Amino acid sequence: MKIWISDLKDHVGQAIELKGWAYHHRSSGKIKFLVLRDGTGYCQCVFVKAQIEEAIFNNFDQITQESSVAVTGVVRAEPRSPGGFELTAASFQILQRAENFPISPKEHGPDFLMNNRHLWIRSKLQHAVLRVRAEIIAAVRDFFDGRGFTLTDAPIFTPSACEGTSTLFKTKYFDETAFLSQSGQLYMEATAAAFGKVYCFGPTFRAEKSKTRRHLIEFWMVEPEVAFNDLWDNMELAEQFVEYIVQRTITNRAEELKALGRNIEPMLKVKAPFPRVHYDEAAMMIKKENPDFLIGDDFGAPDETIISSKFDRPVFVHHYPSAVKAFYMKQDEKDPTKCLSCDLLAPEGYGEIIGGGQREESLENLLTRIKEHNLNTADFEWFLDLRRYGSFPHAGFGLGIERTVAWVCGIQHVRETIPFPRLYGRNYP
Amino acid sequence: MKIWISDLKDHVGQAIELKGWAYHHRSSGKIKFLVLRDGTGYCQCVFVKAQIEEAIFNNFDQITQESSVAVTGVVRAEPRSPGGFELTAASFQILQRAENFPISPKEHGPDFLMNNRHLWIRSKLQHAVLRVRAEIIAAVRDFFDGRGFTLTDAPIFTPSACEGTSTLFKTKYFDETAFLSQSGQLYMEATAAAFGKVYCFGPTFRAEKSKTRRHLIEFWMVEPEVAFNDLWDNMELAEQFVEYIVQRTITNRAEELKALGRNIEPMLKVKAPFPRVHYDEAAMMIKKENPDFLIGDDFGAPDETIISSKFDRPVFVHHYPSAVKAFYMKQDEKDPTKCLSCDLLAPEGYGEIIGGGQREESLENLLTRIKEHNLNTADFEWFLDLRRYGSFPHAGFGLGIERTVAWVCGIQHVRETIPFPRLYGRNYP
Repeated sequence: MKIWISDLKDHVGQAIELKGWAYHHRSSGKIKFLVLRDGTGYCQCVFVKAQIEEAIFNNFDQITQESSVAVTGVVRAEPRSPGGFELTAASFQILQRAENFPISPKEHGPDFLMNNRHLWIRSKLQHAVLRVRAEIIAAVRDFFDGRGFTLTDAPIFTPSACEGTSTLFKTKYFDETAFLSQSGQLYMEATAAAFGKVYCFGPTFRAEKSKTRRHLIEFWMVEPEVAFNDLWDNMELAEQFVEYIVQRTITNRAEELKALGRNIEPMLKVKAPFPRVHYDEAAMMIKKENPDFLIGDDFGAPDETIISSKFDRPVFVHHYPSAVKAFYMKQDEKDPTKCLSCDLLAPEGYGEIIGGGQREESLENLLTRIKEHNLNTADFEWFLDLRRYGSFPHAGFGLGIERTVAWVCGIQHVRETIPFPRLYGRNYP
Repeated sequence: MKIWISDLKDHVGQAIELKGWAYHHRSSGKIKFLVLRDGTGYCQCVFVKAQIEEAIFNNFDQITQESSVAVTGVVRAEPRSPGGFELTAASFQILQRAENFPISPKEHGPDFLMNNRHLWIRSKLQHAVLRVRAEIIAAVRDFFDGRGFTLTDAPIFTPSACEGTSTLFKTKYFDETAFLSQSGQLYMEATAAAFGKVYCFGPTFRAEKSKTRRHLIEFWMVEPEVAFNDLWDNMELAEQFVEYIVQRTITNRAEELKALGRNIEPMLKVKAPFPRVHYDEAAMMIKKENPDFLIGDDFGAPDETIISSKFDRPVFVHHYPSAVKAFYMKQDEKDPTKCLSCDLLAPEGYGEIIGGGQREESLENLLTRIKEHNLNTADFEWFLDLRRYGSFPHAGFGLGIERTVAWVCGIQHVRETIPFPRLYGRNYP
């Protein structure tokens, strides 16, 4: 009976079959070892000459790295083994003998690894990162589903831009032009009026012509929106959310984080409440260390690091200047040059992982903002309707999955946080 | 204290505040009724003249359909009320008086409703359909996450086509051209070799120039792939999966399905095992009732209905002619004109909801198939690598979410199964 390595614990003492790939193998005269991986785990299979048909035993040396192999044998508990079990092998069969596997323990350049991404994901560290990613995504959904939010997917094809037009992908959509979504935000405002508490979770696209360690062309974003929430409610929701996904992941993926060498001490401190800093205060902090910073500007990555380095957990910066935020942000009634926005900066230099805030609910103000941003009012008629038919205060945010995965894993570049990254100049494999 | 209608049960006897939209209101002299909806439920608020300040009571008639309103009052259990609770109102405030709401109980044409989709989703039946959709999506994820599958998202931007080139959307990707994914299939074959059991779940795109009730331009698909599974394992996984999502949804969304008038009798029968019919046998069934059908052809929607009408639950058709299926399908070794594919046809005329099968694992055969399909080998080098480095038998399938939602809800057209449908000629709102 073929079983998965992750299920070995239920088959101790039984004769079973494993199928997988040769991760590592070595010979030592009368005994040969094969570490098999099947994607769910690793298992050392031990071949003893005296116990195996000679022709089969001698064929062992035909195994190459990543050859697909079926092994039969008896499961044995082995506390010293990484997975806790070993297989006393009775026989094996090479399903396909792999050609010389291009990825070896030696150092490869990032371009080489990215060109071989379809094979690189088999390696232990990439495997660990992507398992953490899957856990974070499951945590995201459980958090919102468990609190009465309704998942309402936003469309990818959109007739208009919402986050500025400089980074838009477009496609011929029959006789029209469609843009690829940069955010589901506007659509979540419509579904919030129908379902109260909503979120969308899907890929978003920004044609950023920059090669940084924090940008992907195609990235996944979760965007909750809550009817009748204000800026302060929004920060409360965001901090509970981030605490939940971080604490759950470091518990459920302890093994993977250990493989990655992640120091989880700083992660244990990611507990609500998070500090809240007004933009003006944050700007003063930056100015002290970076005299070139202009108060009123948006923050660059080094500026964010200056702020986040002052705290032991993620920190909110709120009330950014209206001029640096999107048209739909509600302006502060006491000081319209500021808006009711909040970004969450992750510690350890990871920077912004959440952007959000309270939305403009006045039809009149929104029309003014759309004109100020040189956007086409006709494209936003449906969005304006939300202010005509029962306008309501509401707030929400977007969390970028890849930056969150990078932070939780403690890795430097977002390109390793998604199975097949799309980067400036990279659309393969 | 502002609370959600879904939480009323925890506040019986307490003075609370509700915020939402006027769903329905009527006056009867000294007593006025407002049914408020807040997205999480409906609550009747009762205003008695003798108990309320006169100016406030008289202002009631200013309320219009979909006006946003805040109401304070005391929660009262009321078994005759749909939600089980009512509010004895003390006061209310109109947050924004809605203009004349365009959607009324009278019949509207589909184009009008689709143009007002952002408002139409507030109506009871659309609300119910989209709640069923969210439940099905949660069920999909729980099924795979609970069985040790790893979610491995496929990219949307791809360098090549996999399901034929006639329905491709493309975009300028910096200096290259990128295609929008029609399926994550090929990528799941790579991640299956890294994680054993995998799935992806995201939007896919097909530029179909047809207006049918079963096609969307942008639709969500879940695609599991399992290393070392064959065609028969694949059908077992698919039937367990479909049983799980259907049975869970009819339990957890009984109220919504009732609102939709869905007869759940046929749904109760959706239990594994499902019948399995060989293509040749299915073709004979069709031929008897549709003499124009050519044996060897793919099935049209009416042909699928002929087959599915003969069974009381979903039915698999397997071993389709290789010529009508994608290049990556493994051919039957005994009869290479047939392939190891399986489609699942839903009952009640809903037709294909799953397509899948066992994949070709031989490098040589795959190269032949790529040439036969006039595809560019260079685009598939990474995919061919999966046959060079530990090739392995594997199988998987794709389930279309919108067709599944339509079937479970018993509605005729997929355009109502997604918040913002994209159809031939429609990219708004």
